[in-house]
Amino acid sequence: MENLIRFGEKFFDELEIAVYCSREVSANVELNEISMASTRSGALTIIRGIKDKRLGLAIVDSDEQEKVKEAIEQAAKMAKLNSPDETWVSLPEPGKYREKPKPNYELKEASPDILVEKLVRGIKLAREKDKNAVVAGGASGVSWEERHVLNSHGLDVFQEGGAAYMYLELVGRKGSVVTPGIFDFDARRDLDLDVEGVVERAVQKVGWAYNVVTSKNEEVPLVFGPWAIAGLFSYALLPAFSGERLVKETTPLAGKVGEKIASEVITLYDDPLHPLSLEPLIADGEGVPTRKNVLIENGTFKGFVWDNYWAKVYGTESTGNGKRDLRSGGINIGFHSVVIENGKRSLEDIVGEIDRGYLVDGLQGAHSSNPDNGNFAVTANPAFLIEDGEVKGSAVFLIAGNVYELLQQASEVSREQTVMPFMNTMITPHIKFENVKIAGK
Amino acid sequence: MENLIRFGEKFFDELEIAVYCSREVSANVELNEISMASTRSGALTIIRGIKDKRLGLAIVDSDEQEKVKEAIEQAAKMAKLNSPDETWVSLPEPGKYREKPKPNYELKEASPDILVEKLVRGIKLAREKDKNAVVAGGASGVSWEERHVLNSHGLDVFQEGGAAYMYLELVGRKGSVVTPGIFDFDARRDLDLDVEGVVERAVQKVGWAYNVVTSKNEEVPLVFGPWAIAGLFSYALLPAFSGERLVKETTPLAGKVGEKIASEVITLYDDPLHPLSLEPLIADGEGVPTRKNVLIENGTFKGFVWDNYWAKVYGTESTGNGKRDLRSGGINIGFHSVVIENGKRSLEDIVGEIDRGYLVDGLQGAHSSNPDNGNFAVTANPAFLIEDGEVKGSAVFLIAGNVYELLQQASEVSREQTVMPFMNTMITPHIKFENVKIAGK
Repeated sequence: MENLIRFGEKFFDELEIAVYCSREVSANVELNEISMASTRSGALTIIRGIKDKRLGLAIVDSDEQEKVKEAIEQAAKMAKLNSPDETWVSLPEPGKYREKPKPNYELKEASPDILVEKLVRGIKLAREKDKNAVVAGGASGVSWEERHVLNSHGLDVFQEGGAAYMYLELVGRKGSVVTPGIFDFDARRDLDLDVEGVVERAVQKVGWAYNVVTSKNEEVPLVFGPWAIAGLFSYALLPAFSGERLVKETTPLAGKVGEKIASEVITLYDDPLHPLSLEPLIADGEGVPTRKNVLIENGTFKGFVWDNYWAKVYGTESTGNGKRDLRSGGINIGFHSVVIENGKRSLEDIVGEIDRGYLVDGLQGAHSSNPDNGNFAVTANPAFLIEDGEVKGSAVFLIAGNVYELLQQASEVSREQTVMPFMNTMITPHIKFENVKIAGK
Repeated sequence: MENLIRFGEKFFDELEIAVYCSREVSANVELNEISMASTRSGALTIIRGIKDKRLGLAIVDSDEQEKVKEAIEQAAKMAKLNSPDETWVSLPEPGKYREKPKPNYELKEASPDILVEKLVRGIKLAREKDKNAVVAGGASGVSWEERHVLNSHGLDVFQEGGAAYMYLELVGRKGSVVTPGIFDFDARRDLDLDVEGVVERAVQKVGWAYNVVTSKNEEVPLVFGPWAIAGLFSYALLPAFSGERLVKETTPLAGKVGEKIASEVITLYDDPLHPLSLEPLIADGEGVPTRKNVLIENGTFKGFVWDNYWAKVYGTESTGNGKRDLRSGGINIGFHSVVIENGKRSLEDIVGEIDRGYLVDGLQGAHSSNPDNGNFAVTANPAFLIEDGEVKGSAVFLIAGNVYELLQQASEVSREQTVMPFMNTMITPHIKFENVKIAGK
């Protein structure tokens, strides 16, 4: 690839070549049966070149020398047609990287067979444990990715690794009750997907869901589960930490570094090298070293995250949060593994102390949240009624509020942490929020 | 491929192999500049095999003999693990096909250069015609697809062809007014994309949008443009024609064949061989001959559309509406080119007769429509006020209603027809609806 950088320097002042080779095997479930097994692999090369502050960007789905050369020429033609971006500074210089985690090579050659076998076992187990349950959907997959990014400043980073996931969606029918779709997940960097755990947790929630109770307008403690937290925070909170939004004046966190924006139990950071992370990257999408970036420490807002472009526009340094968008080829500010620190007591202990409240498993409508101010309006579904320290049934209700007000109401985080491979990977405990206003439905 | 059918017959009672080879070049616009040029190509083979009514489905992104053999074995293993589908009848038999349209081979080897050049010309032209306009976004692409489907009943169909598209999104700023994003489109089976037409129509609409008027609650004639029609009908109306929904009792059209469900000006059919169609296919995703399927003729509902599976479950014949989902590998009931027949008079004549009403260019929220009953609630934006036969300004308002009631209110269709490459390709005139209740916003 280095000779291609030399080739590209004929056309550009600066040049970046990023090569992504990936392989993904997966299998899907529909209505108790395996509906599909799939093997896909491919290469993608993205050229970013700058000439007189004019940007050219070309994508080709190959890593062959000749095709990459064509893409470089394509990018050069494009740069000529564009106007200069006067705010452009430069591509990143090489940095100091942390030690690369050892990839798990058994993930590289995984066969769909092993996933089909796990899903079949999960379906069988779920239907044995609950004769009224249907495995409405589900999937399991193993992905492997090799990333090579290099630029004309001598930056050159190669990384590889993989992860596996599975989820099942159960629906129970008993008498006239049809439960909502109940999901459970596992995701990790090896093939030992916890089929039994996924089934056990899902079946337990289906069992709770058979007893449908009516919700009412009230102010109660809510314990949010990982799926609900990942949904709400991904849309209402995380975008606010983006340095691009600071520059564009679309974050409510502007000028608030050092201020308390959450209760003391909340510590939140981004770190791809967390032990549970699914992508332990030492460099981001443009080759800048990743690091642990603390966003909230014991309730205090610590700072923004940046990619190379917006950091230089603002006059600061990239925090290693440049994520590559493989559709557009561009770099956006994003997160690697968002971690919410866990607490000391178990979820069971936390629930055991609640006289009346709800365990919120899933949220609908979180994608309509407004990250400009943190406002959200969601439907809690599935959600489970807690009375006298025990889960008693399931209910649906509305929560309309503001994510920063909610963060101030956090009173405890559970010991258990779960990996949610959502839009962003989130590693999160359950969080208890006090006195949350809900509207019965 | 035929030897692979023989190979697969060792494992299955029936077997289908579908091979998709595609190439797509595209270029994108962001804020007056070309942001990306891309070239992607690939092959995908999907195996559907049935043994003792047990289905196996495997996908591999290759058309190489050895990889396809592996996928066949993968599908065979899966079929063994699944339970029988007692409603399964059989894969389709070969049919009588219409004459294949001649593919336009200039689309097969198109370079992104030509698209970049067209977009640059579009940007330049738009900014010349309206100094206050920004080309906020846009894209142009050329796709080429080769489809080969064959099965163990002797069905064997190869088809190839391509299409090109472009769209621009303009935003105008004048004084304190910032217009909404104003879109215009072109899509066709050759490279002569109508850059001038796209720009002219978009700039005209931006010009109208500078004069913002307040909307109020009233009952007025509305003229829906192609983009609004494609949005609303794709979500609220078209799913109701699916035979699967007839079997599952989730269509309001059950038992209504021969009834009047729209005003007489509405004739709607699906036909991939319409001259303006972007994919002139003689066979659907499972090799069944396509045909012209009339859905509504002068207001009268003529019947449902079917794929092979649901037709046989119901005891009828496939109408050639089996569409392949390349993600799941499965076949769903869908449409090729939905055509709404045009009328005699021009849009200008129709608008010229309106004392007070609106031209509705785009709708927001159509995806939340309910196809089970036709109910919808949308925001008309951009929409343009018509007074005394002329467009006077732009407004935003709400329309909540039922698509079947709306269809009864249709009073005229324009002479001009436009191709909308939306979820389904739709070829549609403007439609005038009388006395539509709108809510000011």
